Amino acid sequence: MKKPLLQIALDQTDLSSALDAAEKIAPHVDVLEAGTILCFAEGVRAVSELRSRYPGHIILADLKAADAGAVLAELVFSRGATWMTLICSAPLATMQAALDTAKKYSGDVQVELYGDWTFEHAQSWLAMGITQAIYHRGRDAQAAGKGWDRDDIERVEKLSRMGMDVSVTGGLTPEDLRRFRGIPVKCFIAGRSLYDCPDPAKAAGEFKTVIDSEWT
Amino acid sequence: MKKPLLQIALDQTDLSSALDAAEKIAPHVDVLEAGTILCFAEGVRAVSELRSRYPGHIILADLKAADAGAVLAELVFSRGATWMTLICSAPLATMQAALDTAKKYSGDVQVELYGDWTFEHAQSWLAMGITQAIYHRGRDAQAAGKGWDRDDIERVEKLSRMGMDVSVTGGLTPEDLRRFRGIPVKCFIAGRSLYDCPDPAKAAGEFKTVIDSEWT
Repeated sequence: MKKPLLQIALDQTDLSSALDAAEKIAPHVDVLEAGTILCFAEGVRAVSELRSRYPGHIILADLKAADAGAVLAELVFSRGATWMTLICSAPLATMQAALDTAKKYSGDVQVELYGDWTFEHAQSWLAMGITQAIYHRGRDAQAAGKGWDRDDIERVEKLSRMGMDVSVTGGLTPEDLRRFRGIPVKCFIAGRSLYDCPDPAKAAGEFKTVIDSEWT
Repeated sequence: MKKPLLQIALDQTDLSSALDAAEKIAPHVDVLEAGTILCFAEGVRAVSELRSRYPGHIILADLKAADAGAVLAELVFSRGATWMTLICSAPLATMQAALDTAKKYSGDVQVELYGDWTFEHAQSWLAMGITQAIYHRGRDAQAAGKGWDRDDIERVEKLSRMGMDVSVTGGLTPEDLRRFRGIPVKCFIAGRSLYDCPDPAKAAGEFKTVIDSEWT
């Protein structure tokens, strides 16, 4: 089974703090995410700056696009994004437009699963050629005290069996990763736990150690 | 019945074009919207620039926030936004966090209705104190040929009867507005039809004429 990648979500409210965090953590992760907060705070120049500094990384623009799929995709893929996110409630026409634009740039889109999405929705995304989704325990849901439970793991597993490459995010600790053992998770996404710590390299290493031991 | 307001969505991909459009149209509209495209293209300085130029207007930051409600709300309300949008699939915790932050600034939030939202969802938003929603015919849905139909009008009417102040958007022509007669629509939102035309004042006037004749 392919090893899950490690992704860092950069969700600072100013670009220079985001770039400082990226500098510390980039050598230890596979995917650099220009988070929604960062993209709104500073605009898509966040994507250009990350691409120019990190030509070899996968760069994700986390727009959670709900509409204007082609225009938003053009904004980020023309600036060097590899992937871009769509919100699950976006109309299929928006998803298709974003996907078509992504493909022009050899990029890809990911659907972010919030609210009342269903497996029937996931099937319709797969049918149109979307193969990536992000399973989410939102930061506000975390703050409200919701932990990872068996239902979460089962939903990720079912999406994966349907043929979706699933990334997983939401207050993950290295120990949480073990619960996804046996599922070909695309990326594990962490944020503040990786850059808001005294030793980001060590923190990333703890995630990588679990990945290496559980996905062999 | 209170007259619906007229709102212009600024969805340019650069700030200077957006400000040019705003200069032409601002005297003729009630609400200036920093659109999602503009906010991603240029960041929330789009909101600050609009606020500094138009101190008397309602300014809407169309973030369609799905998560991080407090942080995103702080970003835009601290820069002078009056309203901010949330996507309908956002968790209630996100909506509550955004609403609480909005209220600190005497601002408000609006829920954008995309995808499979339900009236039960709308009831839960009302129960938590959210009183504004945006009924949407998305630009990609428009491009796919979907027109305004009787179902759209009935859904707007039902939301309104439930106690929601509903704004309406999506390729609206002045003639389309007549179909909403009898419903206390909060805002009619137009975009390119108002600023991509030889005479924006005249185009806005045509909307206002219909509003004045149908909502008396």
